Amino acid sequence: MEVRNRYVAIRRHIEGAPTEVDFEVREETARWSPDSGEVLVRNLYLSIDPYQLNRMKRSSASHLAVDGILPGQRIAAYAAGEVVASASPEYAAGDVVAGVLGWEDYTLFTPSPAVLMSKVDASASASAAAGGFPLSHHISALGTSGMTAYGGLFEVCRPAKGDKVFVSAASGSVGSLVGQFAKLAGCYVVGCAGTKAKVDLLKDKLGFDDAFNYKEEPDLNAALKRYFPDGIDIYFENVGGEMLEAALANMNTHGRVAVSGVISEYTGAGRRAAPDLMEVIYKRITIRGFLAWDFLPRFAEFNAVIGEWIREGKVQVVEDVSDGLESVPSAFAALFQGQNVGKKLVKLA
Amino acid sequence: MEVRNRYVAIRRHIEGAPTEVDFEVREETARWSPDSGEVLVRNLYLSIDPYQLNRMKRSSASHLAVDGILPGQRIAAYAAGEVVASASPEYAAGDVVAGVLGWEDYTLFTPSPAVLMSKVDASASASAAAGGFPLSHHISALGTSGMTAYGGLFEVCRPAKGDKVFVSAASGSVGSLVGQFAKLAGCYVVGCAGTKAKVDLLKDKLGFDDAFNYKEEPDLNAALKRYFPDGIDIYFENVGGEMLEAALANMNTHGRVAVSGVISEYTGAGRRAAPDLMEVIYKRITIRGFLAWDFLPRFAEFNAVIGEWIREGKVQVVEDVSDGLESVPSAFAALFQGQNVGKKLVKLA
Repeated sequence: MEVRNRYVAIRRHIEGAPTEVDFEVREETARWSPDSGEVLVRNLYLSIDPYQLNRMKRSSASHLAVDGILPGQRIAAYAAGEVVASASPEYAAGDVVAGVLGWEDYTLFTPSPAVLMSKVDASASASAAAGGFPLSHHISALGTSGMTAYGGLFEVCRPAKGDKVFVSAASGSVGSLVGQFAKLAGCYVVGCAGTKAKVDLLKDKLGFDDAFNYKEEPDLNAALKRYFPDGIDIYFENVGGEMLEAALANMNTHGRVAVSGVISEYTGAGRRAAPDLMEVIYKRITIRGFLAWDFLPRFAEFNAVIGEWIREGKVQVVEDVSDGLESVPSAFAALFQGQNVGKKLVKLA
Repeated sequence: MEVRNRYVAIRRHIEGAPTEVDFEVREETARWSPDSGEVLVRNLYLSIDPYQLNRMKRSSASHLAVDGILPGQRIAAYAAGEVVASASPEYAAGDVVAGVLGWEDYTLFTPSPAVLMSKVDASASASAAAGGFPLSHHISALGTSGMTAYGGLFEVCRPAKGDKVFVSAASGSVGSLVGQFAKLAGCYVVGCAGTKAKVDLLKDKLGFDDAFNYKEEPDLNAALKRYFPDGIDIYFENVGGEMLEAALANMNTHGRVAVSGVISEYTGAGRRAAPDLMEVIYKRITIRGFLAWDFLPRFAEFNAVIGEWIREGKVQVVEDVSDGLESVPSAFAALFQGQNVGKKLVKLA
């Protein structure tokens, strides 16, 4: 079988903030044959994640853990789609799957643990009451964003009831879940975001105890002192730069920092945090980096809990959906301008 | 009983590197009475430690964990001495003790866990064969330096056989022990120091696998790549600044950084490290600050192991002794010029 496949590629390695012109939509013919062992998927929802920028640079620490992306190449990405043809006994045409696919109309994959593929029940009968979820959830709260938030909070930070938790980029795909999970763990949770609408969302819809617009705070250190008069026990780091410096200055003894992402630093080394290591020593702070993939063996376990919370209405899933493959470059660039609210997705026709 | 006591004090709060003129030797009369509950100690050896500088600043993260030092005040410090008079049933005149005393001729203390006081056998009959140690060892390898090195390496870093360990300020009081302990744990150990003599000491006397003079390396990143072609698993951090940045760039996945001290940053915030947090994320690095005091409940246990290693000749104790109370200011200032080799002590007459 042959299908005409459109895919998004970078025109050149990216340094600094990405813009639409860094990308192009290319076409190729994707060939599937019954003896290939491959599965052909028509993609339905694509995940748009900030970390992908690090793969698009000429070199970056990310290249150690994830393959770098070359100009003109297909871009692997978490996505959901429908199986069109399968040469694997594990999948059949019509199956709906979520896993590592790509920023493209169709993806061929060979089943292996590395593609993290799972079949999802996205039939019309899969109502919330029957245990089903909108397909998009499988690449947001029930995908790598959920795994990052759950693993990062519960495994890396180990929150105790009453802990004071600060979440940066709190209205983003991961932050919005971390804050809600921390509330369910009995913590006091404050988030920061970059617009009034996002701050309102955190407070009014997502149940954060408080939230603030960091762009309106000339002194982040003073702002955190105001929001955390008793100090911060856990900082879930999505931002980097001076936000980390301010968080450390306000942390309590034995504070924990889970470094999930540092979006403010992705676009330039000049934005790096220069944390006061004396805070780290005297407060015995632990700063730990992690990747969602570290929790792969527990993906099903995490998802069972998150899914139950969503069903019970205890966790709200915030998604920000653009339409059409050609919107991928603008959707991606918008992440770095803070334009998304919740998980950024692109829906294909 | 009254004794004329000389003590070292700061003349003013210190910012930047300390010099002798920041200090003065003052005199007072120390009064002990039988109903005070206090113990009067004549000090014999004083510990001179870089962290004290943070207490001498107007404000510092250290003030959270340790009391700040005010101009004109006595300066508490780890030391060893002989009991002159005791109003406590736990101590008798003639006992030799090590614990929190002060930079002074005599110290009055009230027994409590906070002063970490222990009686030591320093009699003439306490030969090495009989299990005794030179008195000075009780405030170096068997004091807080040993506790810092042992706890930091074994509890914070958890070395496995074959791990590649990098120690900065490796000829210092803590670093010289950490490297030797790591060798005993079956690790590959490289240290850095600031003179050829120190580098030779590390390689020839302390059994480090290799060592280098960081002052002769224009590119620390490249130097570490050369000394650790297979990457660093554990970095024992005594220095901070660009040394941390270079170590992170050369660390392996799941690397561990124990932040024991950052002497290069004590003398100015402008020297702060700006670590690449993407290294921290993608390599899942853990950076953890700690204090020797965290291991207080295990002090005796640690010392039993360290003492045995010293007796067996497996650990060399390197001490750098100055004479007389009036030498405390110059001995302290010299720490920040890298002039000490091993643990800096001042011996009182």
